[in-house]
Amino acid sequence: MNRDLVTELINALTILPGVGKKSAQRMALYLLDRNKDGASILANVMKDAIESVQRCDSCRMLTSNSLCRICSDTSRDTNKICVVESPSDVLAIESTGGFRGRYFVLLGRLSPIDGIGPEELGINDLLSKVKKDDVNEIILATSSTVEGDATAVYITDHVKTAKVSRISYGIPIGGELEYVDGTTIARAIEGRVEINVD
Amino acid sequence: MNRDLVTELINALTILPGVGKKSAQRMALYLLDRNKDGASILANVMKDAIESVQRCDSCRMLTSNSLCRICSDTSRDTNKICVVESPSDVLAIESTGGFRGRYFVLLGRLSPIDGIGPEELGINDLLSKVKKDDVNEIILATSSTVEGDATAVYITDHVKTAKVSRISYGIPIGGELEYVDGTTIARAIEGRVEINVD
Repeated sequence: MNRDLVTELINALTILPGVGKKSAQRMALYLLDRNKDGASILANVMKDAIESVQRCDSCRMLTSNSLCRICSDTSRDTNKICVVESPSDVLAIESTGGFRGRYFVLLGRLSPIDGIGPEELGINDLLSKVKKDDVNEIILATSSTVEGDATAVYITDHVKTAKVSRISYGIPIGGELEYVDGTTIARAIEGRVEINVD
Repeated sequence: MNRDLVTELINALTILPGVGKKSAQRMALYLLDRNKDGASILANVMKDAIESVQRCDSCRMLTSNSLCRICSDTSRDTNKICVVESPSDVLAIESTGGFRGRYFVLLGRLSPIDGIGPEELGINDLLSKVKKDDVNEIILATSSTVEGDATAVYITDHVKTAKVSRISYGIPIGGELEYVDGTTIARAIEGRVEINVD
């Protein structure tokens, strides 16, 4: 029996997050019917990326080189490290353009029940990076979950030579109190900042 | 300079319909971080499909063989042909499971202003298929646009040997009159069907 590659492509596309049968069908017909050149580029880039993308040697971000774009950018501040849980957090922070330090990607958060301990998160690598690069501030941007909090506490306890801070959690800018959930409001009140009038 | 394949993959994914920068980013990180095997299958299937998918010799549907799955299925009724504008229309009708005839895909609709005439739509192929396969009914499922209507009229005028019908347009099942647009209501009234009480 010959392969039915249209159906195979539709099925293969459904592995993409957020893509169901209907969208996959639309994508497959679009690629095969109207944009074979684009599809060809996409398939090639995907193949190349799968082969060569691995972890940055320094910060564990995804990269196709031994050091990621950020770690190899010498104009960036090596004294500040922002610790995040996943590669997408790095992209989210980078999109603001406001942070000029470097990152460390944990690839998860402490969760003994799932067998994820400090070793899996590479916290030793983080600590030796802190020493080697003479880091003076670690900004924790782990998630505001129980595990994210535990991870933040663990790192704080083990860093001896640098200041440790954590990004603030509270009401989103432009958010109306009325529509914000109770936990966030409680956190915002707990984390209130004194206003100094000089 | 080394290639930054993570960024290249994100950009390449944005060619997919309905995929913006944010979704592309999510897809790329998912594929590279958590499903390299799936990504590899996807890239391979895409490459194979681009190389071998072309038009069905008989109905112009997309297929990786010389005849599509429907045209090579001998259990289907060869006497009925449903004429549609695009491959996605075939999949939409097939998903109902209610039609057991064959298809003819125009790949567009008559639009002299865009240089699309009967030749581009392969209407001669359709007419010779009608003769050759002894088709006795042509069901037109072109869109309810000016061009779709013109295409339907053109085909009706040129078919001599078969009955020609058109799918009905009207109020969707379960749709409430209140929320249906005026043109559709007018069309539904115009296309009213007499009820015979025996």
